[in-house]
Amino acid sequence: MRQSFLFSKTRREAPKDELAKNAQLLIRAGYVHKEMAGVYSYLPLGLRVLNNIVRIIREEMNTIGGQELVMSALQDKDLWSRTDRWDDTKVDNWFKTTLKSGGEAGFGITHEEPLTRIMTEHISSYRDLPVRAYQFQNKFRNEMRAKSGIMRGKEFLMKDLYSFDQTQEEHEKFYAEARDAYLRIFDRLGIGDKTYVTFASGGIFSEFSEEFQTVSEAGEDIIYIDEEKNLSFNKEILTDEVLAKFDVNREKLIEKKAIEVGNIFHLGTRFSEALGLTYKDKKGESNPVVMGSYGMGPTRLMGTIVETLSDEKGIVWPENVAPFKVHLISLSGGDEAVREYADMLYEDMKKHGISVLYDDRDNRAGEKFADSDLLGLPWRVIIGKNAISNGEIEVVNRATGKIEKRKREAVLEI
Amino acid sequence: MRQSFLFSKTRREAPKDELAKNAQLLIRAGYVHKEMAGVYSYLPLGLRVLNNIVRIIREEMNTIGGQELVMSALQDKDLWSRTDRWDDTKVDNWFKTTLKSGGEAGFGITHEEPLTRIMTEHISSYRDLPVRAYQFQNKFRNEMRAKSGIMRGKEFLMKDLYSFDQTQEEHEKFYAEARDAYLRIFDRLGIGDKTYVTFASGGIFSEFSEEFQTVSEAGEDIIYIDEEKNLSFNKEILTDEVLAKFDVNREKLIEKKAIEVGNIFHLGTRFSEALGLTYKDKKGESNPVVMGSYGMGPTRLMGTIVETLSDEKGIVWPENVAPFKVHLISLSGGDEAVREYADMLYEDMKKHGISVLYDDRDNRAGEKFADSDLLGLPWRVIIGKNAISNGEIEVVNRATGKIEKRKREAVLEI
Repeated sequence: MRQSFLFSKTRREAPKDELAKNAQLLIRAGYVHKEMAGVYSYLPLGLRVLNNIVRIIREEMNTIGGQELVMSALQDKDLWSRTDRWDDTKVDNWFKTTLKSGGEAGFGITHEEPLTRIMTEHISSYRDLPVRAYQFQNKFRNEMRAKSGIMRGKEFLMKDLYSFDQTQEEHEKFYAEARDAYLRIFDRLGIGDKTYVTFASGGIFSEFSEEFQTVSEAGEDIIYIDEEKNLSFNKEILTDEVLAKFDVNREKLIEKKAIEVGNIFHLGTRFSEALGLTYKDKKGESNPVVMGSYGMGPTRLMGTIVETLSDEKGIVWPENVAPFKVHLISLSGGDEAVREYADMLYEDMKKHGISVLYDDRDNRAGEKFADSDLLGLPWRVIIGKNAISNGEIEVVNRATGKIEKRKREAVLEI
Repeated sequence: MRQSFLFSKTRREAPKDELAKNAQLLIRAGYVHKEMAGVYSYLPLGLRVLNNIVRIIREEMNTIGGQELVMSALQDKDLWSRTDRWDDTKVDNWFKTTLKSGGEAGFGITHEEPLTRIMTEHISSYRDLPVRAYQFQNKFRNEMRAKSGIMRGKEFLMKDLYSFDQTQEEHEKFYAEARDAYLRIFDRLGIGDKTYVTFASGGIFSEFSEEFQTVSEAGEDIIYIDEEKNLSFNKEILTDEVLAKFDVNREKLIEKKAIEVGNIFHLGTRFSEALGLTYKDKKGESNPVVMGSYGMGPTRLMGTIVETLSDEKGIVWPENVAPFKVHLISLSGGDEAVREYADMLYEDMKKHGISVLYDDRDNRAGEKFADSDLLGLPWRVIIGKNAISNGEIEVVNRATGKIEKRKREAVLEI
């Protein structure tokens, strides 16, 4: 894409009321726009990043047998009353509204209830199990405070997968597969080495749930990491009893702030019993379906990547999620030969299937480099007079800062 | 995909409270689930259809220079008060809610206001124009009545594009390009021959807007078509004065019920003036930006396709939008040779890049055919004993009912 075509512009300052580094950088670079506290729109570059994250998650969810659907945001009060999750004294972050056609509705905070109800119409026999179903869908949560930028929005994109199994044993097997898929996703997103499986409080059906926590000063959680065992504990469950259970020595634990980038829950039969989701087993006997839920927020992940990988000059995207792989910069300064050379290289790069943002604007070199640092594409390719005269093109790696000279052919192999 | 893997099942009856044919068929076939009146979830097959419709619209929007973004559903009361579209006496279909952090918010019914505000931060000079920006995003409208299935939801997917130009003349030029793009979309979706450019009431900045109306008994609008001139008029503007303006003879007009599948509006400077979106022209003078808006609902289009193309046996998808191109049906009746043959053909079809749903279930032939008619995939390929013994495979076209015998190689060229 030509940068002169892109409508978003960079800016020097983030809005004064924006305190989170991730949102400050993303707003300055033109990736997102702040609508209200905790509410953001995704501009073209931001949407490209989000779509890349979604694509990676989707591939991994399909690999473990996920079937994609998309449920409504509008939620039925009656349904949530049946599981006792409607009342504000039980769940304190609903956005509620009044229907002109009569009654009240909410905007989905999560989707165990509606999906369990859907499954009552599609699951009746052991032959219909297992089912793993997921969606990418905007959740709404009426947060009191929103101070973490796009990492904790009142409206945010979430991938939520739900599993339906015959037995606890089959559920546990899938739960382990989902854990592995989550770890693959964090690796592919470039935050694998900073992300720990973290035990946290469970629910009525299990002692623990598992969170995936990415170490960052911007995190809202405190975790205790055992580096040797490669696992960690959320502060909320750190008791001597728990440590003994995992055979962990308190002395060895390292305290860190961290961002919860995913979580997986055993739900047992909490929802299937309340909403009548049963199946007939081989003997013809009726049993409640065993469920699990598996959450992960693409928008929060985008914020986490910015928090953990950016530097003093701007954002640093891993190749897998960058909106474009290459930032091609023409320093023509009015020189037609340079502009033509850059134009042709841009067309050739596209022909070679390279995803490229082409800074074809007339701005000064200093401005272009500052913008480029802020935008954070993995490779910067610079075309000035020298590139033409001696046939050597400067290629800069955004993450390492390493500069190399390449021939034109080698640039097309980037 | 193997049908035994797909969690959704067909059913004989639609819910009793569902009156619209489109939703009745889509629910029976397992494409959608009804959550509440006017609120639907999209199950895996339904999501595939919706994604196909979205892909076609996206391609055409990109062709006319659209840049994709995605804005928030949550809307700022202050912003909408500035254009006088917040008050319930002015706009009667808001879903409103109370923020725990204080104040009120709404769920977006449309997005002129937030996008105009975003553009005030990115457009300042004639050099920044034109801009065409669009999104696929869920709109929320607090409808009193919801009796048209997925064609008029309280929550529905919408493609909304907005144009920003220097002058009315440049706006008109783009408006015509958008009209052409819309007509190409309806052609690709298989409803082009039933869809008419229809003049309807405009706003303060133009006498008329243009609607795209698809003739159907399920439509909520009445239009008057001039077949010779290939245009039509919404009943709301049908006066002698208007007919004279278009040089149309009232006698020639044919009255039809129709579904509004898209609309395009001249907005003039209504929003840019209210929200301070101006640009400096070449002389350095400040002018308000000239705007247009262009709406189209993928969910409504999906409903319209079902309403207009289905038959007494079920849904009939055009190839461009079908969830799969081929419905491969094995009639093994426990015969291992037939099952193996069908399994191999399924794998080969996938290798040939054919999108195929494989009915590998043990159900009776009659059930399988009834399901297949209901699901409505364009081509049915039947594998029974005969297919193996004489090497002839029965291929049925869902739309025409035409049956042909093909050799295995020819089936792979479908």
